[in-house]
Formats: sequence, structure tokens, C-alpha cells
Amino acid sequence: MSNRITSLFSIQYPIIQAGMVWCSGWKLASAVSNSGGLGLIGAGSMTPELLLYHLNQMELHTTRPYGVNVPLLYSNIEAHIQVIETSPVPIVFTSAGNPALYTARLKAAGKTVVHVVSSAAFAEKAARAGVDAVVAEGVEAGGHNGKEETTTLCLIPLVKAAVSIPVIAAGGIASGRAMAAVIALGADGVQIGSAFAVAKESSAHERFKTAVLQSKEGDTVLTLKELAPVRLLKNNFYDEIKNAYTQHVGIEALRALLGKGRSKKGIFEGNLDEGELEIGQVAAQLKDEPTAEEIIHRILQEYRLTIDSIPYF
Amino acid sequence: MSNRITSLFSIQYPIIQAGMVWCSGWKLASAVSNSGGLGLIGAGSMTPELLLYHLNQMELHTTRPYGVNVPLLYSNIEAHIQVIETSPVPIVFTSAGNPALYTARLKAAGKTVVHVVSSAAFAEKAARAGVDAVVAEGVEAGGHNGKEETTTLCLIPLVKAAVSIPVIAAGGIASGRAMAAVIALGADGVQIGSAFAVAKESSAHERFKTAVLQSKEGDTVLTLKELAPVRLLKNNFYDEIKNAYTQHVGIEALRALLGKGRSKKGIFEGNLDEGELEIGQVAAQLKDEPTAEEIIHRILQEYRLTIDSIPYF
Repeated sequence: MSNRITSLFSIQYPIIQAGMVWCSGWKLASAVSNSGGLGLIGAGSMTPELLLYHLNQMELHTTRPYGVNVPLLYSNIEAHIQVIETSPVPIVFTSAGNPALYTARLKAAGKTVVHVVSSAAFAEKAARAGVDAVVAEGVEAGGHNGKEETTTLCLIPLVKAAVSIPVIAAGGIASGRAMAAVIALGADGVQIGSAFAVAKESSAHERFKTAVLQSKEGDTVLTLKELAPVRLLKNNFYDEIKNAYTQHVGIEALRALLGKGRSKKGIFEGNLDEGELEIGQVAAQLKDEPTAEEIIHRILQEYRLTIDSIPYF
Repeated sequence: MSNRITSLFSIQYPIIQAGMVWCSGWKLASAVSNSGGLGLIGAGSMTPELLLYHLNQMELHTTRPYGVNVPLLYSNIEAHIQVIETSPVPIVFTSAGNPALYTARLKAAGKTVVHVVSSAAFAEKAARAGVDAVVAEGVEAGGHNGKEETTTLCLIPLVKAAVSIPVIAAGGIASGRAMAAVIALGADGVQIGSAFAVAKESSAHERFKTAVLQSKEGDTVLTLKELAPVRLLKNNFYDEIKNAYTQHVGIEALRALLGKGRSKKGIFEGNLDEGELEIGQVAAQLKDEPTAEEIIHRILQEYRLTIDSIPYF
């Protein structure tokens, strides 16, 4: 069946792979698009040159629709936007910034534009900026996160009530049951991060993937709220953050502790001690490292079984 | 249709009204039970004498099954347990404490016993203690809360995988869509707090109900994590807590600031400045003050519409 999200993106299933730093280059994104979902290049960790390379690779490896996720607070954002404007990439997800800044320009370049939000107020702002859809991301999501700390279960109804454009749910979704749950809540599609971060085609380091697969409930935490809230796997680096909080250090000391390149170190280089291991709370449910195609097929199969068996009261 | 929860409690719908301090006396609990759900007396704010009074009133006002929620950390817990043992109340929900302490005794007195948990590990512990079901409560729930901060969307699949007894989902549920969502996730029933806290039959003060109904997204916060994590509506009292944190006061100063009787002051006496206004994140979705019967009927109607219209992909 088609719905507003499959129609908007011309894809088979309303399953979107989140654009994730150090995980989602052309290998993962093309595998997702080739399996009937929407694959996104995660531009956040890329130079404009590297982004261009990955976009070119997408043209070589899929004939299906695909997209790119761009954090608008990225220091070299203008260069990223120029790469995207002149690339054939049809879909752009923007996040972490003001949707009023680039939406009109991207629309003028013929792109379908989606903005990631953490509240109904931001969803309204994005809709006013002219985006075609929003991703509503709950506090259980990995990586950078909204300040409101609204959970996906509480967020989706508020966003649905606030905007009439399609809503993609994100945060805590890694199974067909969770997909059925957020579709029941009113979402038109799902964006899935953590499960694809450990997919075979993810460019994350094997040590990072293993740490995610071995993690248990309570092993992720939302921290560094004074800088930009981020959900990560507890490790040595997080112990240092906790220690800093115990000593009541200021925001500048926290910024210095975070430093630069922490997520590359953790996710891409597999330095589990010093790296920032960004992952969602749903990590505790992940048990193996399937291909992107297997992930999509498992989710769809479980989704269908679930909606066929929901009891009537 | 019946399921494991309706069968366990001999009720019509798998909708349980949470036992809430200062909200759920016999008026609310009997209205819920008389409408086909399961009403619970919230014993947490009661002396043993008052609990006995409310249990006796339940016998006068409903012929349907009902229950009582007892926080096991309550200072006079032994007196509460003795009141319950000798009362005809058929169902006991225990929370905030070790399920190994009283489960066998309550079962020996012929009660159906349910324990409230915030993690799969606690669910396993409760199952080993012999409870008949668990309530799995996510971090979006109002009032006292687990330390794990796992959201309902992430918690239910973990608890379902950990135990074979029925699982009741709690936290973030105030609509038929949310009920469909957690049933799709695998829950066998729902426990609903905030929506019933503002029901006509709730004994909460009108000023508290109005504050809840006027609240917006982001207006609740999980705080006092060093004592016992509690989700409350932001107010003057919360500003004092924030101020205390800014000054890095210790746990004893926080305990002194909390003092005694804060929730009574806020919820029962309607002192919105000095009181502790315990409510869930779902408060932002609540718009009016229906009767318990209206709440249950609205939820069931929306639930049925939802499961009839979930698209197949």
C-alpha cells in the first residue's frame, strides 16, 4: 500500500534510514534505497568534497530515490548546500538549526525538504518554512537530541495535532512492533537510526557495533545538556563527563572535555574508551548485524504480523 | 474480546486506572470499575484507617473487581498490608519497593498481585517473587519514576522479552491511539494515570486540574533524581529545586527543600506555588475534565478506529 510518505518520496515502504555521522555513507544508503526504503547520506561528518563523492556514488549504485541529511549548524554549511543544489539528489533532510534558512533555496533547486524536530512548536516553525514533511524525534533517539526531552510516545500526537504535513516518527524504533506502534499513534512513516548503525553496510567500526550489540537496558544516557544534548553509550569518556559534573565545572570546561572528533574516534575508529558512542536507547534490543535489506524485511514482516493480530476490545 | 489482562482481573477492558496519591480514592476507583476498567485506590497518601474507609466504600459502590496500589516503601507498610489482608479487595498493585517482601503473603490471602517496574531486570525479579503480572512504566510517567529513564516505547519490548506473565504498559498513555501503540508493542493492557488525575471523580484540587489542562509540551520535568526521581509540572517549587542545583547543594539540603507533604499541598490543596505537582508528560495532550466513564469510552472508540485503519505495507 502507499501512503503520504511513500508517495512523497516515491518509495516502496515508509522506512527511512537516518543520516548518521560515521555510519551512513553511500554503501548503507544505497542498500536501504535498493531495498525499498529511503537511504540517507549523513553529511554531518563530511567535508563538501567527501559529500560530493558519496552523492556521486549513490548515482552509480541505485536507481531508486535517496536523500541526504544536513545538520544546519555545520560550520561549512554553505558549501554543503551548494554541493546539494548542483547534485541530482532529490531529497534533503535538514536538522539541528533553523528551517527558515535554507528550505526555500532547496525547494527552488527542486528538492523535497524534510526537517527534523523535537517538539510541536518546532514542527509548526518547519511547516511555516515550507518543508514537505517533518521527522518528529523523541528523547530515546541516539546522538543529538532536543532540549524538551519529550518521548516519542508523547511527541507524535502533539506534532500530528500541530501540523498537517506528513510526520515521520523517530526515536526508539527498531522493530515491526515499534513501527506499528508509531503508525497507530498517527505517524506516516518511521526513521530508524540505531538498527542501521549496526547494519553490515554501516561504516561504523566493528568494535563500535559490538559494543552496541552487547549493551543492555540503562546503558545509554542523555548528557552534555548544557552544550547540545546527546544520547550515548556509557563508557570511559562518559565517566569523565560524570566526574566533571561532580566537580561542578562550567560550560567551557565541558566544551574542552568534549573537544573535537570524539564521535569519529568512537564510531569510526572504534576507540571505545575515548570516543563518543552515539546510539539510541533502543540499542538494548539489537542482537545481531544484519544487512540493510534483512533489517527492512524483518521489520515489515513483524509489522504485518503485528497489525494482523492486534486484539479488538 | 478478552485477553490475559481482562481474564486475570475479570474485567471488561484492559484499562487500569493508576493508583495515584491525592487523586484516586473510592469515587474515582469505583467509577472506573463500574465503567468496565479496573479502578485502584491509591494507598500511598492514606493512613491505614483512611485506607480501610476507602476499601469499605468500594464494597458499597461497585460490584465489579477493583484493586489497591501500595507503595512498599511507605513507612507504615505493615499496617497497610494488614488492612488489605483482611479486606475483600481482590487485587493488589505494589510499587516502589522489593516485590519479594509481601507477594507471598498477599497471594496467601487470596489476592491477585501486580508489581510496578521500570526495567526488564525488575520485571524478572517480580516474576520470580510470584506476581501475576507487571506494570512496565516508562520515564514519561508522572510522579515517582525509575532510575533507568527508559521510555515506554523502549521498555515494553524489553520487559516482554524478559517475562512470560502479562505486561501492563504505563507512561504516556491517554488516548486510544496510544493504547493501540502499546498493545502493538506487545503489552496486554494499559495503566493510565494523568488522564484519570483530571477526571471529574478525581479528588485532586480544581486548581491542580486546571494547571494540568493548561500545561504545554515541555512543562513537566523529571527531577530530584538523587532522592527518588519524580516527574512534576514546573512551578515555583521546581524553580527552587533548580536554584538549589545551581548552588550545588547536597542531598540533605534537597531532602530539606522537599520537606513533607509537598504533593498533598499541590495536588489536594491546590497550592500551585509550593506544592509538588506530580503529573505525566502526556499532560500536554489533556484538554478537558471528563468523567471516568467518558475517558474509557473515548479511549476505546479511538482504539477501535485506530486498529481498523492501520495501513498494510
